[in-house]
Amino acid sequence: MTFITLEGPEGSGKTSHLPGLADAVREAGYAVVVTREPGGTPIGDEIRNTILKLENTEMHATTEILLFQASRAQLVNQVIRPALAEGKIVICDRYADSTMAYQGYGHQTDLSELSRIINFATGGLTPNLTVLLDLDILVGLKRRSSDDENWNRLDAKEIEFHQRVRKGYQLMMEKDPERWEKVDAEQDLEKVKQDLISVVLNKLAKKD
Amino acid sequence: MTFITLEGPEGSGKTSHLPGLADAVREAGYAVVVTREPGGTPIGDEIRNTILKLENTEMHATTEILLFQASRAQLVNQVIRPALAEGKIVICDRYADSTMAYQGYGHQTDLSELSRIINFATGGLTPNLTVLLDLDILVGLKRRSSDDENWNRLDAKEIEFHQRVRKGYQLMMEKDPERWEKVDAEQDLEKVKQDLISVVLNKLAKKD
Repeated sequence: MTFITLEGPEGSGKTSHLPGLADAVREAGYAVVVTREPGGTPIGDEIRNTILKLENTEMHATTEILLFQASRAQLVNQVIRPALAEGKIVICDRYADSTMAYQGYGHQTDLSELSRIINFATGGLTPNLTVLLDLDILVGLKRRSSDDENWNRLDAKEIEFHQRVRKGYQLMMEKDPERWEKVDAEQDLEKVKQDLISVVLNKLAKKD
Repeated sequence: MTFITLEGPEGSGKTSHLPGLADAVREAGYAVVVTREPGGTPIGDEIRNTILKLENTEMHATTEILLFQASRAQLVNQVIRPALAEGKIVICDRYADSTMAYQGYGHQTDLSELSRIINFATGGLTPNLTVLLDLDILVGLKRRSSDDENWNRLDAKEIEFHQRVRKGYQLMMEKDPERWEKVDAEQDLEKVKQDLISVVLNKLAKKD
């Protein structure tokens, strides 16, 4: 049973590297299920739409946290657990650590309270391997922002938020070094992809 | 600050008595906000639709619990707390005790875990008065079921579930007698309404 998650700040390239990673794992002879958060199920997609549609208006931070957990609970029970039970490798684009990093470290919600709610939502399902695509947050944000005007509007508060998120990922990695691997996402894209694939294949080889 | 909730099993008449109760409280000179769960806000109504649309198919019990809490968090922060802060009386059709009764006692989800999640969602906001419209569950279910065929399909398991819900309400009431009042909802409708109004006006008179 191998459950792999990808984590990292905006612009780290997680989502664009995922299909290539899945292909490489398949070529190595494993059955793979690829999914993402929030969403990944019809119910989760509906919740995702609610989160995205309304996030900038009246949605309260607590509501958003609970919607993320509802989407996660559905994904774990409908997709991830059944696939793992069939012996498949599950690779998920973001998972519980994103809640800890963004809502916990970033927005400074109580970490132990968040952790308990995540545990309720997931029934305690923890990844066997989490790969952090790590990069300087200014590099990441710049990659995401296609027009300079938008980029220039980024204020100091927002930058501090993303710095807390990155620091949160680093702290979680230090606390649980067995589970986490770091890939330097400031390298050129092909090298990031190669490192990501080799970290994952090494872990799978060790488990077999 | 007075936050009043109505609780009770299906068919107890909560929802149909609510407008009459609100009118009576207004006539007594109070500003009143009436709301309901799940829903009560645009975001909450969207969540309510997700719950109702999918409840009988693939929605996992944990997902449903978290969606109810998300809707509740939004209602508390967008409607209930602001109204209470303005000195209004808020009357809500179902609230946290419904989660404890249905998901906790009825579906036997861990009560202390539920209680922690509710506390996270509500920020600890507890009603000043909760009125339980209590009645024999067979009477309540029969009232709700308009055709006899449907009624006859009710199986023993479902009846046991509703009995656990009623028992749960009774246990919560015994633990916190200061907050709870019971109205006998097996009486004729006019008498139920009168009792409900008098319980609420008495409480408000005591607070003034």
